[in-house]
Amino acid sequence: MELLKQRILAEGKVLPGNIIKVDGFLNHRIDTGLMRAMAKEFASLFNTEGITAVLTVEASGIALGTICAEELGVPLIFAKKAKSDNIEGGLYQSDIFSYTYKKKVTLLLASDWLGPRDKVLIVDDFLAKGEALRGLVDITNQAGAQLIGLGVAIEKGFQGGGDKLRKAGVNLRSLAIIDKADQDGIVFREEQ
Amino acid sequence: MELLKQRILAEGKVLPGNIIKVDGFLNHRIDTGLMRAMAKEFASLFNTEGITAVLTVEASGIALGTICAEELGVPLIFAKKAKSDNIEGGLYQSDIFSYTYKKKVTLLLASDWLGPRDKVLIVDDFLAKGEALRGLVDITNQAGAQLIGLGVAIEKGFQGGGDKLRKAGVNLRSLAIIDKADQDGIVFREEQ
Repeated sequence: MELLKQRILAEGKVLPGNIIKVDGFLNHRIDTGLMRAMAKEFASLFNTEGITAVLTVEASGIALGTICAEELGVPLIFAKKAKSDNIEGGLYQSDIFSYTYKKKVTLLLASDWLGPRDKVLIVDDFLAKGEALRGLVDITNQAGAQLIGLGVAIEKGFQGGGDKLRKAGVNLRSLAIIDKADQDGIVFREEQ
Repeated sequence: MELLKQRILAEGKVLPGNIIKVDGFLNHRIDTGLMRAMAKEFASLFNTEGITAVLTVEASGIALGTICAEELGVPLIFAKKAKSDNIEGGLYQSDIFSYTYKKKVTLLLASDWLGPRDKVLIVDDFLAKGEALRGLVDITNQAGAQLIGLGVAIEKGFQGGGDKLRKAGVNLRSLAIIDKADQDGIVFREEQ
């Protein structure tokens, strides 16, 4: 998606450790107009007929997920990352490894909100190793829900998580795939 | 706001410990249509002329905050609750006590995204003791930004946090104030 790539080139910073910082528009300060444009792009990329929900994971996925859900006229459901007292029994759970926090994290979703009659689109702002998305796919399978596909804003292609999901047969579409990010700049993967 | 109160009465559950569970439409599964209606209500309740950003805190505030920000045509900025490697120096910080997690939590906001020329509306989905909002007001003051007011979806009036903020002179507007919640039901505060 050209609009997103231009924003990454104009405002993104590459930090040591191949960290791509886009927190001015994607995951700390949120450009809601850009979120809306990305939601429309996902609506055109996926067959969303019969969709019942958009699924994401807290925290930064919620902004994009909310706009996508409104665009598609369905609720957003977001998995939580830690057990709080406000969640009672009846949970889907999936363990993932968080490379951001360098520890195991359990994704939780109340089973009240996802079941066999659901048809979901999973969205997230970032894909690196793909752990969060693997957990969301796992939860979708536990619920017996139908998966339309995975929509991601920025994929760090050089970390391999996206290609692993594609090989597993998941319909993954990323709006910008970065194949190289270092002090020399950012290189995007050519569109298929 | 009548629409919100009706949803609370129809779908809310009161759990032991005066916990009000509204995770079917507000903070786990998100009714984006309701979020939009609440955003329009905030737009009418506050004087948002010259507003530059909406400010909230992760995680569940992000859904309402995103729709409010889009409604008002400004970016959303959300404070984070724990230090991750993706945030470099230059942070506003405010320590709050999280009654949900029963421990001290530090709210963090990159100073790049808020400064003396900003005019912000703070929004959040829930207000109980008011710790999260106190932290957001603190960060707004640290940034030297102008505070338009605080917009909250559901205030647990019986926990006193909202009235404390009002006494401190903050322009707080809650769309539903619950003054009593137990096994006998939910009682809303009369509108002023």
